[in-house]
Amino acid sequence: MANECKTTRVESDTLGSMQVPEDRYYGAQTMRCLLNFRIGGTEERMPKDLVQAMGILKKAAAEVNQEYGLDSKISAAISSAADEVISGKLYDEGHFPLPIWQTGSGTQTNMNTNEVIGNRAIEILGGTVGSKDPVHPNDHVNKSQSSNDTFPSAIHIAVATALVTQLKPALTKLRDSLNNKATEWRDIIKIGRTHTQDAVPITLGQEFSGYTQQLTNGLQRLDAVMPRVYQLALGGTAVGTGLNTRRGFAENCVKVIAKLTSLPFVVAPNFFEALASRDAMVEVHGALNTVATSLMKIANDIRFLGSGPRCGLGELLLPENEPGSSIMPGKVNPTQCEAMTMICAQVMGNHFAVTTGGASGHFELNVFKPLIASNVLRSIKLLTDGCTSFCINCVQGIKPNKEKIAKIMKESLMLVTALNPHIGYDKSALIAKTAHINGTTLKQEALNAGISEKDFDEWVRPEKMLGPS
Amino acid sequence: MANECKTTRVESDTLGSMQVPEDRYYGAQTMRCLLNFRIGGTEERMPKDLVQAMGILKKAAAEVNQEYGLDSKISAAISSAADEVISGKLYDEGHFPLPIWQTGSGTQTNMNTNEVIGNRAIEILGGTVGSKDPVHPNDHVNKSQSSNDTFPSAIHIAVATALVTQLKPALTKLRDSLNNKATEWRDIIKIGRTHTQDAVPITLGQEFSGYTQQLTNGLQRLDAVMPRVYQLALGGTAVGTGLNTRRGFAENCVKVIAKLTSLPFVVAPNFFEALASRDAMVEVHGALNTVATSLMKIANDIRFLGSGPRCGLGELLLPENEPGSSIMPGKVNPTQCEAMTMICAQVMGNHFAVTTGGASGHFELNVFKPLIASNVLRSIKLLTDGCTSFCINCVQGIKPNKEKIAKIMKESLMLVTALNPHIGYDKSALIAKTAHINGTTLKQEALNAGISEKDFDEWVRPEKMLGPS
Amino acid sequence: MANECKTTRVESDTLGSMQVPEDRYYGAQTMRCLLNFRIGGTEERMPKDLVQAMGILKKAAAEVNQEYGLDSKISAAISSAADEVISGKLYDEGHFPLPIWQTGSGTQTNMNTNEVIGNRAIEILGGTVGSKDPVHPNDHVNKSQSSNDTFPSAIHIAVATALVTQLKPALTKLRDSLNNKATEWRDIIKIGRTHTQDAVPITLGQEFSGYTQQLTNGLQRLDAVMPRVYQLALGGTAVGTGLNTRRGFAENCVKVIAKLTSLPFVVAPNFFEALASRDAMVEVHGALNTVATSLMKIANDIRFLGSGPRCGLGELLLPENEPGSSIMPGKVNPTQCEAMTMICAQVMGNHFAVTTGGASGHFELNVFKPLIASNVLRSIKLLTDGCTSFCINCVQGIKPNKEKIAKIMKESLMLVTALNPHIGYDKSALIAKTAHINGTTLKQEALNAGISEKDFDEWVRPEKMLGPS
Amino acid sequence: MANECKTTRVESDTLGSMQVPEDRYYGAQTMRCLLNFRIGGTEERMPKDLVQAMGILKKAAAEVNQEYGLDSKISAAISSAADEVISGKLYDEGHFPLPIWQTGSGTQTNMNTNEVIGNRAIEILGGTVGSKDPVHPNDHVNKSQSSNDTFPSAIHIAVATALVTQLKPALTKLRDSLNNKATEWRDIIKIGRTHTQDAVPITLGQEFSGYTQQLTNGLQRLDAVMPRVYQLALGGTAVGTGLNTRRGFAENCVKVIAKLTSLPFVVAPNFFEALASRDAMVEVHGALNTVATSLMKIANDIRFLGSGPRCGLGELLLPENEPGSSIMPGKVNPTQCEAMTMICAQVMGNHFAVTTGGASGHFELNVFKPLIASNVLRSIKLLTDGCTSFCINCVQGIKPNKEKIAKIMKESLMLVTALNPHIGYDKSALIAKTAHINGTTLKQEALNAGISEKDFDEWVRPEKMLGPS
Repeated sequence: MANECKTTRVESDTLGSMQVPEDRYYGAQTMRCLLNFRIGGTEERMPKDLVQAMGILKKAAAEVNQEYGLDSKISAAISSAADEVISGKLYDEGHFPLPIWQTGSGTQTNMNTNEVIGNRAIEILGGTVGSKDPVHPNDHVNKSQSSNDTFPSAIHIAVATALVTQLKPALTKLRDSLNNKATEWRDIIKIGRTHTQDAVPITLGQEFSGYTQQLTNGLQRLDAVMPRVYQLALGGTAVGTGLNTRRGFAENCVKVIAKLTSLPFVVAPNFFEALASRDAMVEVHGALNTVATSLMKIANDIRFLGSGPRCGLGELLLPENEPGSSIMPGKVNPTQCEAMTMICAQVMGNHFAVTTGGASGHFELNVFKPLIASNVLRSIKLLTDGCTSFCINCVQGIKPNKEKIAKIMKESLMLVTALNPHIGYDKSALIAKTAHINGTTLKQEALNAGISEKDFDEWVRPEKMLGPS
Repeated sequence: MANECKTTRVESDTLGSMQVPEDRYYGAQTMRCLLNFRIGGTEERMPKDLVQAMGILKKAAAEVNQEYGLDSKISAAISSAADEVISGKLYDEGHFPLPIWQTGSGTQTNMNTNEVIGNRAIEILGGTVGSKDPVHPNDHVNKSQSSNDTFPSAIHIAVATALVTQLKPALTKLRDSLNNKATEWRDIIKIGRTHTQDAVPITLGQEFSGYTQQLTNGLQRLDAVMPRVYQLALGGTAVGTGLNTRRGFAENCVKVIAKLTSLPFVVAPNFFEALASRDAMVEVHGALNTVATSLMKIANDIRFLGSGPRCGLGELLLPENEPGSSIMPGKVNPTQCEAMTMICAQVMGNHFAVTTGGASGHFELNVFKPLIASNVLRSIKLLTDGCTSFCINCVQGIKPNKEKIAKIMKESLMLVTALNPHIGYDKSALIAKTAHINGTTLKQEALNAGISEKDFDEWVRPEKMLGPS
Repeated sequence: MANECKTTRVESDTLGSMQVPEDRYYGAQTMRCLLNFRIGGTEERMPKDLVQAMGILKKAAAEVNQEYGLDSKISAAISSAADEVISGKLYDEGHFPLPIWQTGSGTQTNMNTNEVIGNRAIEILGGTVGSKDPVHPNDHVNKSQSSNDTFPSAIHIAVATALVTQLKPALTKLRDSLNNKATEWRDIIKIGRTHTQDAVPITLGQEFSGYTQQLTNGLQRLDAVMPRVYQLALGGTAVGTGLNTRRGFAENCVKVIAKLTSLPFVVAPNFFEALASRDAMVEVHGALNTVATSLMKIANDIRFLGSGPRCGLGELLLPENEPGSSIMPGKVNPTQCEAMTMICAQVMGNHFAVTTGGASGHFELNVFKPLIASNVLRSIKLLTDGCTSFCINCVQGIKPNKEKIAKIMKESLMLVTALNPHIGYDKSALIAKTAHINGTTLKQEALNAGISEKDFDEWVRPEKMLGPS
Repeated sequence: MANECKTTRVESDTLGSMQVPEDRYYGAQTMRCLLNFRIGGTEERMPKDLVQAMGILKKAAAEVNQEYGLDSKISAAISSAADEVISGKLYDEGHFPLPIWQTGSGTQTNMNTNEVIGNRAIEILGGTVGSKDPVHPNDHVNKSQSSNDTFPSAIHIAVATALVTQLKPALTKLRDSLNNKATEWRDIIKIGRTHTQDAVPITLGQEFSGYTQQLTNGLQRLDAVMPRVYQLALGGTAVGTGLNTRRGFAENCVKVIAKLTSLPFVVAPNFFEALASRDAMVEVHGALNTVATSLMKIANDIRFLGSGPRCGLGELLLPENEPGSSIMPGKVNPTQCEAMTMICAQVMGNHFAVTTGGASGHFELNVFKPLIASNVLRSIKLLTDGCTSFCINCVQGIKPNKEKIAKIMKESLMLVTALNPHIGYDKSALIAKTAHINGTTLKQEALNAGISEKDFDEWVRPEKMLGPS
């Protein structure tokens, strides 16, 4: 973070001048923030996709500002510089060093973006970096904007993009893999379990169809919250009134942003809400939290169904991806389930942070935005990568242990339910209890209770117990 | 809970016979549960609206079971008895004493319902209470059902009903009250605040329009999750396969339930998901959590805007509902804001509990259902009553302190922003900083800086600072 | 809540006069609060033990106030009336009807207490209820106090008492029961499980000794937070300065409170902290949260170890307390584990609510106190009753399924670890993997690999695998 | 992550051979994990201080293993290699690339450590990297250990070290800075505020003494949990029995660790608890959560007390660290408060994640350990850096706005409380209310009410209202 031994140049802002590293495009305000917020290391940087979204916004603004009098050369240079933000190049090269833990409005990241794009645009135009001429970070790059409308807009752009291009495809792929298993295993009859206790039979395909439905619902949940994620604060400027912007500027910018991202962004219906609350992020994280809930259930089930190899439930054979233990040879662990459930727990924790941040706005501005944005984006990233890893490295390679499945299903006492319609609830219960106490089979005790073998074999057929009559 | 000194009768279940209070309709299984789960007092009872929803479900089942061979007299008696559950009468009279903290499937509350309706139906038909004749709790009241599909269905019925008939109207009313204020106060210009610091002007109406939009969005959020709340597990019976029910039974029941409640319930698309997960409840509580986030922000703002009377912001005058302090005469506190924000914190806490419960299902069943249901219903109840109380006892009676609003707005330095387009950012900043240091007005320092009074008065007009140019 | 048809009397406060029910001791301020906060039903009342703690405090204050000039007859009458609050009688009879969701300082419950004790004391002295003569709720019952120091003191009194007299004994009893099992089962060798997969052997007693240690640690955790729970805010009055109280009053009161409760309460070292924060409650709930974490693990393990009867792990036989299902005869479910884990999830949710409330104080007062108090007390109550129920109805009755335990342990491949020191890691791994693939026993494959039977039998002895060498 | 174009060497484990980068010390198992867990980028790496703690543990083990027969040259080489892990050098150079999101036991990070130290030790001894000769990652570096006892031990080592050497000093420094202010400002009388409303006077020093006490308590809270953090799982090996380790090994290792860290680590009293639960981490994070609660309150207060400059409370002048806005010149925002409160919200969210992970262990192992460790360490890091930044960049530079403080205090109506003892509660209240309605001063209305000026001036003296009488 220190730059004592590097070559520096002088940049200035309203508080005075600052030494900044010669090989960085950022200016005085970014430098000031770097020194004032030494919180966490590089892993606590403002997320890359959020900075990229700032680039999209700045590009759109530069193009639209041309319609409102911005010199076309300056506009073009800003647009080009913004492209290098959008591609991630300038982030990767260290021009966006600021941490999440800065001002809660993200002002300093907005200024970081203005400074970097400004200086890079100056460079493109052959000017002197740091001179603010011919491109000024405030007057040109930030023209008609405020941190208070750009930063939340960038959050929505980044989150919507990540949801649509990352999480939804990964979740869909995992859903489809689970569904393939559901289809493939539709005829493998197994014991059902309720209260973790033996229950009546189902097929392994039916069981996995439940997981499939959970993720299908998860995709619907994500869709259901998008209308409010697509609403951009841009045009509200500092407090929601749109002071110092121009009529039509926001609408036109949002159109460009929609085009650049291929996503149906709109101008927010009320700028005061759009600046002062981040409710849409709390809402979208509520959907992520629900998805995490689903994935936790699925990964836990798979972990337990694959437990063994000899002393667990052992119905599923999970892929052997790595040696399981440094001391116990031959052991293979459900490591993908473990990574997935840890991710789910993290997402639930992030949800708390986002909720607390979302509830803590005051008056015209929520100042927990970097917290909120970083948690939402991290949750999306972890769920995306987690789904992909879980899909490829676990679900696709799961095989049913048909012998074990069949064996324990046949030993189950719960097939007794099939007797209910024939001999009544109480008598059925007695037979099951007797077999339980004696360690015998249902059939033995049913015969003892006077049921004929023919009746028993006709009545107790797992394959006939898989649906209504 | 004890019934030593009461008259009792003997009831029995598969585990044996039990003494139950003569003046209660419940039977052996309820009694057994009462003795086994002495957890919390009456305030920890299974929620009333959930039991009422069980009544709706049992009534529908009785009617439909007639089509599948149930004796019409028995069906009618069950239906009548169910009406007394639906009305709340039997709950209020102590026939549903079971706590939330019982089996996680709600089986014991399902049996409580079966027993109460069974015995009450027997009574209606002139039989002997406790005889299970002519109405049997399992064979007739629970016919074609299981706890595992009835209890989650009742949760969805209760939650959907509470959302549509309680929370949505209360939230709408509060929204409308806030909107009335937004309209009424649309011309009251005040200082905007960002970072809790003075910012550029807005109108009080604009500020309240943000709150209005938050609640409008909240209503949309509730609507967005309803499709999955309307899905009922009924028809899945024990493990999702529908064993021991009849084809068409669930579809017909759900139609009757939809008619009884006037809500568009449907049969769940996948029973395995509908039994094993409670994702829809996690999702719906995510929406409640977001609504709580909005209300926390609104109530906090109102609390601070009404702070004073002399040493706070003092822009709003809150209704004086009670003496504020036992020691400080004349003090009036924002007590409705306090109740509301406490409710919001509770709802956020409940959300954690629901999420944990929702993530903890195993195999074919989630066994955290009473936890989940009680938290969702409590959150709805608290938000409903909280919104109503906050609306009636606070929002409707708020008055703007116009003198204070005007006074501090005029003193603000942030009107300097209006100079930006005329004299540039840096010069404007200098004027503001000088006034800040000297404790003078902007105008004084602007004149010192060489701006003419005429220009200043024309440029710095708060009423012209309320929108884009 | 309404009292239209009841006989009423008129009471008054600084805002005017109110009709209150003739058969209630409370006065105008309580009545006003009842009408202004119609939030939730009777299950949302201020907790009984908190009101009882208010009684203890008022009794102590009355006795000490005598030293500061309070008439001894009035003091004695207040003390007698307070006894009826302490016993719970006046709460049970409906004299404390206020909800949790009132002012965040608990002022209205403080006034409720002052009014009830005042009127009851008047009655004891033969005066006219409602006359405030000869006992005035503010001037006498609340003498030298403020809501802002009494209410938090009552919270600490109630919480400390509940922890020491309820939760700690219940937790100790459960710990001891688990420890009894650990001792009893110290020689039952079973398969250990890590990653839910088969691992090397342990004894069932060792496994339960881990649970015992968790609860022993839990008790230490509760002890570790007590020093700050024993600190009482009394003496701080309205803002922490102690205005309008008398030197020595608080110290003397706290001594009386310590005597009445047999608990080592002290005057808080800093009243500003004691009024403005409720950190000690966040801290104590952190300990409850950790205890919940332990109990969740223990109950989950027992649930899974008892899964079956035929298709689960089946190592433990849980007591059969009730019929498990309305459709599946003979099924017995781990219902006590389910209640316990639901309670744990609720406690975790409560922790969020308490944390949010604790973080939300402003300036000289935290106004989330009823929220905080009700959640802490509810968590203690649920954990107490949950531990007792789980202990009596589950743990004490658990039996090991020795045959099953021995059978699956012997089938395990993980005994291969015993070969490590003799033939090396890689060769051992190969034997285990071969047995796994072939579905054979370790011994078979070990012999195939050239190990003599004698060596194998000597090396692979589970009873020698239970500790370091 | 991919290494297609790099020079590679072949390493192998029990699953087969792998290409690994030539310039990295890690082996086959690390490489396998890298490929199987492509979750998150570099910011999701296993925390550095956790890896460093693994280094401490491996160094201690190597030294102690010498006593149990490990060749002294090998021991010395392992110890030297471990030093390079401890210093952070090998982490910074990319030899520990594994993500948090791997197996929940941390096995792969244990193996990563074994492989890196093994190969580096081979190199030190002049052998061929990758040959496992003369130093074997399992047989030598991991000798007498298991992932299941080393990884949790490393967590405790890293957390204890971070608490003692990072958080406690930073928190102490912040506490001392607040205390300096409390002392310095002990005579500045200001209005107290309860319910965010004007209350009776306090001094600014008293107000800050409350913050000081909160942090003093926070330090006590951290101390109170340390006994269980100092307990190390080492010696439990795979399942807690200590199989495949040697008597005395753990005790001796822990002594070395204690010496290396200067912290009083002990062997855990029960290894089954120490492996299967991570309760101590849930507990320690409960303390962090409470500290976050305190800091949230303090930072919020400072934010509001510093609100203005003209339209807020304006009692404090916060340091002007950066330009506050890209559009509003001259505005300075409480950015350090914003960073701090965002950090607190993150810590609260992390607490949820840790709690969920802590509650989710099964049988002999908790497999949410990397999740738990990373959140605890991140919370400590953020609180440490946050406290330091808040202390240096905010608290130390705060100045009281004495004029504003005095002005609004004098205008307050709450000084009326001083009249209580002289003219009674009801009459005092009337005077305050009249002044409130008329917008007049207390004194004016007191004179109107017949109080003499002399009495008023003698009775109503803020400096006499700062303590008990």
